[in-house]
Amino acid sequence: MSEARDRPEVVVLRIGHRPFRDKRVTTHVGLTARAFGASGIVIADFKDKAVERSIEKIVRVWGGDFWVRSGDSWREVVEEWKKRGKTVVHLTMYGKSLQGALSELRGKDLMVVVGSEKVPREVYEVADFNVAIGNQPHSEVAALAVFLDRLFEGKELHMEFKGGKMRVIPSERGKRVEKIRIGGA
Amino acid sequence: MSEARDRPEVVVLRIGHRPFRDKRVTTHVGLTARAFGASGIVIADFKDKAVERSIEKIVRVWGGDFWVRSGDSWREVVEEWKKRGKTVVHLTMYGKSLQGALSELRGKDLMVVVGSEKVPREVYEVADFNVAIGNQPHSEVAALAVFLDRLFEGKELHMEFKGGKMRVIPSERGKRVEKIRIGGA
Repeated sequence: MSEARDRPEVVVLRIGHRPFRDKRVTTHVGLTARAFGASGIVIADFKDKAVERSIEKIVRVWGGDFWVRSGDSWREVVEEWKKRGKTVVHLTMYGKSLQGALSELRGKDLMVVVGSEKVPREVYEVADFNVAIGNQPHSEVAALAVFLDRLFEGKELHMEFKGGKMRVIPSERGKRVEKIRIGGA
Repeated sequence: MSEARDRPEVVVLRIGHRPFRDKRVTTHVGLTARAFGASGIVIADFKDKAVERSIEKIVRVWGGDFWVRSGDSWREVVEEWKKRGKTVVHLTMYGKSLQGALSELRGKDLMVVVGSEKVPREVYEVADFNVAIGNQPHSEVAALAVFLDRLFEGKELHMEFKGGKMRVIPSERGKRVEKIRIGGA
C-alpha cells in the first residue's frame, strides 16, 4: 500500500457486472480505480477471471499494489464495510451534488459503489451518501474518475506506483517509456 | 447550442472504434462528452448506427443539442479542423501533464482526440497538444471526463440541457425524475 499510505483507504465496489456485455467497461472501471488512487476493487455477484486477469496484468507491469476480487455478494461486502464503521458512497445521476458532499467525505475510508444501468433500490438505501456527478446519464467510468479526482484534489495523478516494470517519461510527441531494472530504479 | 453558448466549441473525435468490442465503451465516450459539455462527437473510420442511435436516444430524452456522427476518416476530420485554425488535443498516457496544458487550452475551440488501445503514431504528430491525464493506463472515458471537468472547472455539471422530456430532481435517497410537458417547463 506504499503509494497510498498518506491517504485514506478507498475501495470500489462494482455492481451489476454482466460477464459478456460489461467485460470492457468493468475493466475500465478497475483501471480507473487504480490510476485515480483507490486501493482495490470488488466486482460483485459474478466471478470474472478474465477481468481480474486484465487488471492484474496492468498492476504487474505498471506497479503499485492495487487488488481485485470478483464474485462476492454486494450486500455482504457493504454490510462488512459498514460493520467496521466505515462510509459507503453510491455514485448515481439521481443523488445530491458532488460539491456539497465532498467536504463530508474527504479524509474518510470510503467504499465507492458504481453500478451499470439497473441498480437495485436497496443500494440507494444502504448507502450513506448518494452522490451525483452531474444529473445527466453518462458512464460509471466517468463518474468514478471525476469523483476520485475531486476527492483527492488532483494529487492522485502524481502518485508513484512502486515495483512496476515500466514507467512513462512524459513527452510532447509520442511514447517514451522507461524499462525499470529489477532491484533498481 | 443554447446550453453551450457561453463556452468555446469542444468536439470529441473517437478513433480506433471497433464495432463489436467497443460498442459500449464508445457509447460511454459519447455520453460523457455530452454530459461534460462537448458539442458533439465524431466516431472515426467505422459507421456505427447502433452507437449513434444509443447516444441520440439519450439526447431526445434528456435534452440539449449534442450531435453524433460516425464513419468519417479521422485524418480528414483533423485536417478540416486544423484548416480552420483550431486546436487539436490528444489525450494519452504518454503526453505532458494536464495541469501544465490547461492554461493554454482554456477558451479555445478544441478537438479532443481519444483513442482505444492502439493509436497511430501520426496522431501524436498532428496533435497540437498530447496531454496525459496521469501517466498510468486507464480509460479513454475517464481521461475525457477528467479533462473536460478540469477544462470547464466543474461548471459543466450545472449546465442546463434544454428541450428534454425528463429532468432529475437531485435527492438523498433514490430516483426522483420530473417529466417535462411539451411547451412547458
